[in-house]
Amino acid sequence: MSSDKKISIAVIKRLPRYYRYLSDLLNLGITRISSKELSSRMGITASQIRQDLNCFGGFGQQGYGYNVEYLYQEIGRILGVDEKFNVIIIGAGNMGQALANYTNFEKRGFKLIGIFDVNTDLVGKKIRDVEIMSMDDIEQFISKNKVDIAMLCVPYEHTPAVADRVARLGVKGLWNFSPMDLKIPHDVIIENVHLSDSLMVLGYKLAEKYRQENCEEA
Amino acid sequence: MSSDKKISIAVIKRLPRYYRYLSDLLNLGITRISSKELSSRMGITASQIRQDLNCFGGFGQQGYGYNVEYLYQEIGRILGVDEKFNVIIIGAGNMGQALANYTNFEKRGFKLIGIFDVNTDLVGKKIRDVEIMSMDDIEQFISKNKVDIAMLCVPYEHTPAVADRVARLGVKGLWNFSPMDLKIPHDVIIENVHLSDSLMVLGYKLAEKYRQENCEEA
Repeated sequence: MSSDKKISIAVIKRLPRYYRYLSDLLNLGITRISSKELSSRMGITASQIRQDLNCFGGFGQQGYGYNVEYLYQEIGRILGVDEKFNVIIIGAGNMGQALANYTNFEKRGFKLIGIFDVNTDLVGKKIRDVEIMSMDDIEQFISKNKVDIAMLCVPYEHTPAVADRVARLGVKGLWNFSPMDLKIPHDVIIENVHLSDSLMVLGYKLAEKYRQENCEEA
Repeated sequence: MSSDKKISIAVIKRLPRYYRYLSDLLNLGITRISSKELSSRMGITASQIRQDLNCFGGFGQQGYGYNVEYLYQEIGRILGVDEKFNVIIIGAGNMGQALANYTNFEKRGFKLIGIFDVNTDLVGKKIRDVEIMSMDDIEQFISKNKVDIAMLCVPYEHTPAVADRVARLGVKGLWNFSPMDLKIPHDVIIENVHLSDSLMVLGYKLAEKYRQENCEEA
């Protein structure tokens, strides 16, 4: 494809999942797959798959299916996996440390170059060769290093102020772990991770299951 | 409502977000809100809101809007916030410890009653008064305590086996943090948290933003 059509964000949000499944298929040595087979593996309808993948040009060929390697590469390209992003983590508590230890992110192009915390006991320690620095030094660090994304793992009440601070320094991507839809008056991209939303969906499904089981027993 | 209509899972997945916003509104002392106002706060269309909330009975009144407290209570009830779930965490690494420290979960009805790890150095320690126990003792613990949900924070390669082990013990809900769509041959509810999917969406949006800025400069 020489130019990309505008893809809806709903489709974009599903692409990482395709990307994961295609990566697994490649690891299994599977070189092509029909939308029907992919559908049965992923648990989504074949028509949804065709619709999603048609959004950005016909990867599938009638009677042949999808070329796994090509599709994997193309989706990776669309997602910007080839792009390299420099990342810092702000807040070296458990969540920050957990993220710092996710080597998977690196494989997807997200390179951790610094960790910051206000806790002086943590400053100077290293996680996977990346030093924990004082929040006092963040201005200087960002002025000297290109930082694309800040992962915000700070307490709820401090999140907007910290977000504002790094946005003023020119960081354009924020990955927020506080349970809020973060909004700040800057031209930045924010993705919010809402862990408790996912847990509540689990709770809902489980309550439904219990109700059904009780009905069956009654 | 005396009986609930079947609500699509797509709507259910959006309810925790409504629930969060309504909680914020209540904290601000706002007692009623129009779909238009809610739309502008949440950044989704008013028609989507009306459609979502109409799914489970007309909460809104023409010309009055939604009663925030009532809507909050009803969504909470549908999500099963009043239900109490006993939760264990398996894997007391950084992610497990981060989850153990999320006091927010408790407020939503998820009570942490045990933490398990294979690392004997961690066994006996406590996180917020909950003891870390040996994985060797998990069978006995689950036989003596009702466990609804296991949060799986174990390494990728161990996740299916651990999931299988707790499912055999009768745990019906699994919250999985390994980057896989966990599948096991048991009658359980599984919710997968895919952190890197969210990060990849952020990467995509950021790459788009950089491209646009480059075009404008050119």
